[in-house]
Amino acid sequence: MHWLKNGNLLSVPGWRGAATAVGLKTSGDLDLALLVADGPRTAAGVFTRNRLPAAPVRLCKERLQATPRARAIVINAGIANAMTGPRGMEDARAMADEVEACCGGPALVLSTGVIGVPLPREIVLLGIGDLSGRLRSGAPMGRQVAAAMLTTDTRLKTAALQLTLPDSGEAPSQRVTVGGLAKGSGMIHPDMATMLCVVATDAPVGAPALQGILKRAVDASFHEITVDGDTSTNDTVLLLAGGGGGPELQEDDPRLPLLERGITEVMHALAREILRDGEGASRVMEIRVSGAPGRDEARQIAESVARSSLVKTALAGGDPNWGRILAAAANAGVPIDEGLLSLRLGGHEVFGGGQVRPEVEPAALEEAFARDEVLVELELGSGPGRARRFTTDLTQEYVRINAEYTT
Amino acid sequence: MHWLKNGNLLSVPGWRGAATAVGLKTSGDLDLALLVADGPRTAAGVFTRNRLPAAPVRLCKERLQATPRARAIVINAGIANAMTGPRGMEDARAMADEVEACCGGPALVLSTGVIGVPLPREIVLLGIGDLSGRLRSGAPMGRQVAAAMLTTDTRLKTAALQLTLPDSGEAPSQRVTVGGLAKGSGMIHPDMATMLCVVATDAPVGAPALQGILKRAVDASFHEITVDGDTSTNDTVLLLAGGGGGPELQEDDPRLPLLERGITEVMHALAREILRDGEGASRVMEIRVSGAPGRDEARQIAESVARSSLVKTALAGGDPNWGRILAAAANAGVPIDEGLLSLRLGGHEVFGGGQVRPEVEPAALEEAFARDEVLVELELGSGPGRARRFTTDLTQEYVRINAEYTT
Repeated sequence: MHWLKNGNLLSVPGWRGAATAVGLKTSGDLDLALLVADGPRTAAGVFTRNRLPAAPVRLCKERLQATPRARAIVINAGIANAMTGPRGMEDARAMADEVEACCGGPALVLSTGVIGVPLPREIVLLGIGDLSGRLRSGAPMGRQVAAAMLTTDTRLKTAALQLTLPDSGEAPSQRVTVGGLAKGSGMIHPDMATMLCVVATDAPVGAPALQGILKRAVDASFHEITVDGDTSTNDTVLLLAGGGGGPELQEDDPRLPLLERGITEVMHALAREILRDGEGASRVMEIRVSGAPGRDEARQIAESVARSSLVKTALAGGDPNWGRILAAAANAGVPIDEGLLSLRLGGHEVFGGGQVRPEVEPAALEEAFARDEVLVELELGSGPGRARRFTTDLTQEYVRINAEYTT
Repeated sequence: MHWLKNGNLLSVPGWRGAATAVGLKTSGDLDLALLVADGPRTAAGVFTRNRLPAAPVRLCKERLQATPRARAIVINAGIANAMTGPRGMEDARAMADEVEACCGGPALVLSTGVIGVPLPREIVLLGIGDLSGRLRSGAPMGRQVAAAMLTTDTRLKTAALQLTLPDSGEAPSQRVTVGGLAKGSGMIHPDMATMLCVVATDAPVGAPALQGILKRAVDASFHEITVDGDTSTNDTVLLLAGGGGGPELQEDDPRLPLLERGITEVMHALAREILRDGEGASRVMEIRVSGAPGRDEARQIAESVARSSLVKTALAGGDPNWGRILAAAANAGVPIDEGLLSLRLGGHEVFGGGQVRPEVEPAALEEAFARDEVLVELELGSGPGRARRFTTDLTQEYVRINAEYTT
């Protein structure tokens, strides 16, 4: 498995793309992009749990439920097409129809940007027609597509790697590529900072196996990052597979775990890029919870620490305030036995056996909390439940930008 | 029902108090106080839902479960006696025992301050002995007790009122007082900003009736305010009743609703003082949710809006960003029918029937969002579920203070 420098979705054989500016962003930057494969691909998606999903999210869910296949994806930034009523749904359908007319289908739609504003449909449809005549393969064009997805992001999020699926007896060994594009910048204007991600591989995979891989890979990447706990109306992750020839890998194929690892690595790299982005964020905390009765309990506790404003401001100040971490953990609603609890900051045990550990040097804790990445380990007892979450600090810059932003 | 100017718990006949400084606060300010009634009172308490409750919280729960009565309450600020292991429990018991030895009992204990630091037991016990010889009645001494409860609060929280229970046939009409003291300042150092509240009345009330009143009054006051969603290890509200003579009011007494209204008013006044306090807070948002399937659903939605960092930063910036409010409401996990949804800001409908209402003047919305108190009304449909929450803005000042604070 090796990373492709500057690689992205258009590093994957069989995919082409293009990007343009049609005026959805007032800045005049690239804001409309198209990704098209040389034939239909197996497709899987995971979507926002927000109860008011945007029109493009509803369209993607409907279509993937009917047929887990896609050949083309149109992406726009600047206008989210969220809370736009029946007209919003008609606009999303018109975009998909236009893509299918120009490039073949099935087509999916991703949107990100301001909420409650209708899309200028004719302008977008003309833009799609224009893009369909300029499709190109290769990573440089992929960077333009990645740029067209951004809203308040300060940098591109791209990743790609190659790996070799071994000879299985039935099929010869096969070199495959996994590449992705994402956008998201939870620290600034997170209401415009929908998390969008598209990952493709040329490895052929059957639909049920692909859906399983996607669910587990998202759990181990995007679901591990918490910025401010708000979930966008448009969050979408799409995974597309196929085109590289050979028989489709099914759920029991021994080569599938290796492919899944590659897909998870790409999504994890994209998730870390999202976490790192944003003028407001200056450092990252990794929270590891172990010894919980089950995985759900471990997740609830890790999430409660990751979302606590008090923990996040302490992180901004480089303050090893472990009382806030324990109090936040104890707010998760999960029973905790104080006598079994242990807390380590940067490897130093500060609380154990129901008591403060006075032997830790304050200077050592301050040093641990001054790092770019702060490690917090919380052990609850001897249960099997484990979870991990990454969070960022809550800075004055976050507040300044979000308070000053006007729709 | 009329308010007593500068009134507090020591405005209630039969109660005396005193406050002193024993060095728990490094500032040298008042940090230890005693409240003593002229005989045992019916007592009820509600406590933090944090799963690592501090030693004094565990002591109060144990004692009130065994006997719903109390005569004296000792309060210290500066050290929370939280996460202090078995020694913490011994310290809390020693404090209660000393109070009972000096003033009679039963005694309860309230603590607030830093987490993980043990109390200097001998100094505190000497302080209790000293206080027991200097007890006085009246509102001026009540203000000293209120001051001794504070940590990062910037002002005293006190309230008292009088009302007349009407002639019931069996008992003559009776003029009674309800008075309270509180501390809490969620905007700054909320880990030290435990919410403590003690309310007393000389009206005689039976224990089951008193517990019911307290639960409902807390629901309609302290549970309606949200500052940052973090719950302290020490949060406690105590309600004490009796001393004014006459037979105890039981659960079916027709005079009880009037008394409950008075108690709720006092708690609501104290809760508003807590919400208003803190250098970081500049304005308040009232969120009203109606038309939900049930009360729980309405509460979840109101809470989700009240806790959203995006809504709170928009409030800080005076930005009528209604998209953030709807997105936060839709994050509560409660199904929402976009077509039935209506959102009003300061009385102006900005979203209704599944669509943006373009007819609202942006200037009118900005004016509504520039007020000291911003009203947000969210109607979900025709269900009976209603809820109300108050929240504050998330300012750069909040982050500055919390990031710079060191244990």
